[in-house]
Amino acid sequence: MKILLVGGTGTIGSRITDRLSDDHDLVIAGHSSGDIQTDITDPESIKTLFEEVGAVDAVVVTTGSAPMKPIDQLTNDDFLEGVQSKMMGQINVALTALDYLNDNGSVTLTSGILSHDPIPQGTVLSAINNAVNGFVIGAYGEFLEKGFRINVVSPALVEDSAEALADYFPGHTPATMSDVVDGYVKSLQTKITGQIIDID
Amino acid sequence: MKILLVGGTGTIGSRITDRLSDDHDLVIAGHSSGDIQTDITDPESIKTLFEEVGAVDAVVVTTGSAPMKPIDQLTNDDFLEGVQSKMMGQINVALTALDYLNDNGSVTLTSGILSHDPIPQGTVLSAINNAVNGFVIGAYGEFLEKGFRINVVSPALVEDSAEALADYFPGHTPATMSDVVDGYVKSLQTKITGQIIDID
Repeated sequence: MKILLVGGTGTIGSRITDRLSDDHDLVIAGHSSGDIQTDITDPESIKTLFEEVGAVDAVVVTTGSAPMKPIDQLTNDDFLEGVQSKMMGQINVALTALDYLNDNGSVTLTSGILSHDPIPQGTVLSAINNAVNGFVIGAYGEFLEKGFRINVVSPALVEDSAEALADYFPGHTPATMSDVVDGYVKSLQTKITGQIIDID
Repeated sequence: MKILLVGGTGTIGSRITDRLSDDHDLVIAGHSSGDIQTDITDPESIKTLFEEVGAVDAVVVTTGSAPMKPIDQLTNDDFLEGVQSKMMGQINVALTALDYLNDNGSVTLTSGILSHDPIPQGTVLSAINNAVNGFVIGAYGEFLEKGFRINVVSPALVEDSAEALADYFPGHTPATMSDVVDGYVKSLQTKITGQIIDID
């Protein structure tokens, strides 16, 4: 398969690259590294990315951020930062992919455990992760009609970030990187669609 | 209780008003009608609303919209329209309420069945409704720490809109207005928090 991996140099993306690069034609998109550069907060940059990469069999997105703050410090702008990056960045990649996917193509997005298992200061991510899940729930029927699939992997705190983020995630058991990568492989290589693939 | 009902002249809000107005001090906020006007898409207008209304025991929001379109016609701007209204409009009301709620105060927001039971052309609402649910999931712990509760009512297609929206919602059984109002009463008058109150 020719797979466009947006965020392929990041914590999760680099592990997906390790697993898939021998057997697939991976195009790694990153903000400042990788095979090709893109800014997912800018819909025009996403269009340019697809114009350059051309038709693909699958798109995987493993990037996007949102701020963490106590609720009484959160502003409209904090939420919009998450909207522009992790929510609309991923959604705009999925919408643009509709014009570039080969038959039976798939899109796999990334949300996260805060959608249903909240932590202090994590409110923006709880909202944004659920928005990404909701997009997949809402979109899969119309993707199916075009012969495409779409899923979202919702990982727990991942092993490779666990030490840095431990203070934010009390009591959270990290997911192994291998289990997390399995979620993406399941989305890519089975026929499931419209699924939130929880890796807890 | 003194209850600020944002959207109190709308389809659901007017039914809540009918149920609660005898026993509570309701302040009805609407875009162009009601006791006081506000524009929930503008965070400054929300601040002005609370400055004028002052301290309250509860805030209920039953307003906010998002466009419906086939997925291959959806743009970034369509999503941002829903983000600004139904998502951030409600979230900004909840964040502003933190400074105006009396002890044991509560906030009740509104999402909807498309969060988990999708229809064609409903992708923006599926994303936005889930974002509102996610906000409540993420926020309730920090609300609790301040002595406040927060829930979200997620109604099915409601009876009073069923005829107008029937073509969009094939196979959806409308919820009675009485059952929908019960969801808000439950949030207001029990001690539950962090709940998505599904009215299916």
